[in-house]
Amino acid sequence: MAATPKYLTGDAAAIREFINKFDTFLLDCDGVLWSGDHVYEGIPETIAFLRSQGKRTVFVTNNSTKSRADYLKKLQKAKIPSEVDDVFGSSYSAAIYISRILKPPVGKHKVFVLGEAGIEQELESEGIPHIGGTDPEFRRDIAPADFEGIANGSLLDPEVGIVLCGLDFHLNYLKLAHGMHYLRRGAMFLATNTDSTLPMHHDFFLGAGSCLVPLINATGMKPLELGKPSQAMMDAVEGKFQLNRARTCMIGDRLNTDIKFGIEGNLGGTLHVLTGVNKKADWEKENAIAVPSFYADKLSDIRLDS
Amino acid sequence: MAATPKYLTGDAAAIREFINKFDTFLLDCDGVLWSGDHVYEGIPETIAFLRSQGKRTVFVTNNSTKSRADYLKKLQKAKIPSEVDDVFGSSYSAAIYISRILKPPVGKHKVFVLGEAGIEQELESEGIPHIGGTDPEFRRDIAPADFEGIANGSLLDPEVGIVLCGLDFHLNYLKLAHGMHYLRRGAMFLATNTDSTLPMHHDFFLGAGSCLVPLINATGMKPLELGKPSQAMMDAVEGKFQLNRARTCMIGDRLNTDIKFGIEGNLGGTLHVLTGVNKKADWEKENAIAVPSFYADKLSDIRLDS
Repeated sequence: MAATPKYLTGDAAAIREFINKFDTFLLDCDGVLWSGDHVYEGIPETIAFLRSQGKRTVFVTNNSTKSRADYLKKLQKAKIPSEVDDVFGSSYSAAIYISRILKPPVGKHKVFVLGEAGIEQELESEGIPHIGGTDPEFRRDIAPADFEGIANGSLLDPEVGIVLCGLDFHLNYLKLAHGMHYLRRGAMFLATNTDSTLPMHHDFFLGAGSCLVPLINATGMKPLELGKPSQAMMDAVEGKFQLNRARTCMIGDRLNTDIKFGIEGNLGGTLHVLTGVNKKADWEKENAIAVPSFYADKLSDIRLDS
Repeated sequence: MAATPKYLTGDAAAIREFINKFDTFLLDCDGVLWSGDHVYEGIPETIAFLRSQGKRTVFVTNNSTKSRADYLKKLQKAKIPSEVDDVFGSSYSAAIYISRILKPPVGKHKVFVLGEAGIEQELESEGIPHIGGTDPEFRRDIAPADFEGIANGSLLDPEVGIVLCGLDFHLNYLKLAHGMHYLRRGAMFLATNTDSTLPMHHDFFLGAGSCLVPLINATGMKPLELGKPSQAMMDAVEGKFQLNRARTCMIGDRLNTDIKFGIEGNLGGTLHVLTGVNKKADWEKENAIAVPSFYADKLSDIRLDS
């Protein structure tokens, strides 16, 4: 049984104690800093406050549509000046996993991408060849000749050994059919993340998990996840930032990704903010998927004036 | 424990006994008569043989992309002359269910369609208004203004009370986002069928269940199925054809749709043909989803010379 989470909103002493407990804050972005293009009030000031207290802030995001470089631009636009090393995305995590852990053999070294440019850019940063993705040839309706060529294999690239899926706003039957057939022919199934929904405009849209679930349903296979809460991502974050887990806190809005990620990673603490997907009732109920150690109404509540 | 299925291939006496047991044969199409555009050998002759023995043949299909009129054309092209009343499709079943059982109130009477023209045509045959579907306005990439208008509701039709999903070769993020938001606002969730795969070109592609599963994943809701094995469809078939269930046999290639449909419908028998999705091993194993009463290598094996 987990202890009752400590409520920080409005309690300056508790906030001071919380901040002193940690050197590094891993922060989820969507639902914590912003919702889509809407930056929550007081966020830039809160990040600046944490940094002014000598804390390291790392933005750990499952959004695969953006590369680290794209994220930098988004952070800058949100008035949170940062460097590329302050960002750790699920696309980058996937690229690192493929190039440094999987090391696919030549002849099966290409990646079929179901996703956006962020994935492609991070694959390229690791020198991994890829097809599908944003290629206009895959952004069209499926035609009778495609069914035939996919079924007999003439339209499939024999060098594809991996299907990597993330959020794809240009999802279509043609790409799903290719992905399905590479999987049926033995390709490894990877996912940047499997978030079912995506917070945007104070509402929810379909997340990466809802874009790739047709492939799970059609093949019976499950992808290896490389975003939160996968500990493959935590290992990569730790390796890169040399962090002391006991003095690191994960901040997020989702229990099944962010909070679980922090707990399973044995971090010193987790902070649940109520500006995104999950609410207080979600960890108060029996058999909650994860219970945070701290919670606050919104991230800006942990900013102190002094 | 179900009895061991009787094997009919090559056993003329057993076939004769099988045929004498029934007046009506309900036949699945994909995987039984054909695979995509490839009609299996001897099929027209086998249907003609059954009819010559005084048997009624009804084509009961979960393929929602075609209306009954479309199916007639396909049957004709396959040299199986038929009439519109010989066909019972899941789109027709869904239209009947909406118009005669649900009877949605005016103001919530429109259907948002995720699917092809077959669904639209059957809805129109029952006078049910619909949006989405094959409308070119929904066959495009999602734009930033769509996210905003869907989230604030300005792009949603307040008269939509039902989301009806089937196989959609023109699946995209825009249609899924609309479907998701109608469901979140209380629309009823219906499916013509939830087959995970679609047999085509001696291979498998994504079925209706794999097209609509993003909505299940993103909303946590499950659709009411109106195709096989739903007994709503069996009731509709029985009502229309006044069949004697004890003297009716369901013939199909899938255990989880066709054979289950026949067993749960208390038909006199079920025949599993091995030309489609499931094989003998699938019902031989422990905890098989459904065990047929008869099986044959292919449908044309039940044709007798005399």
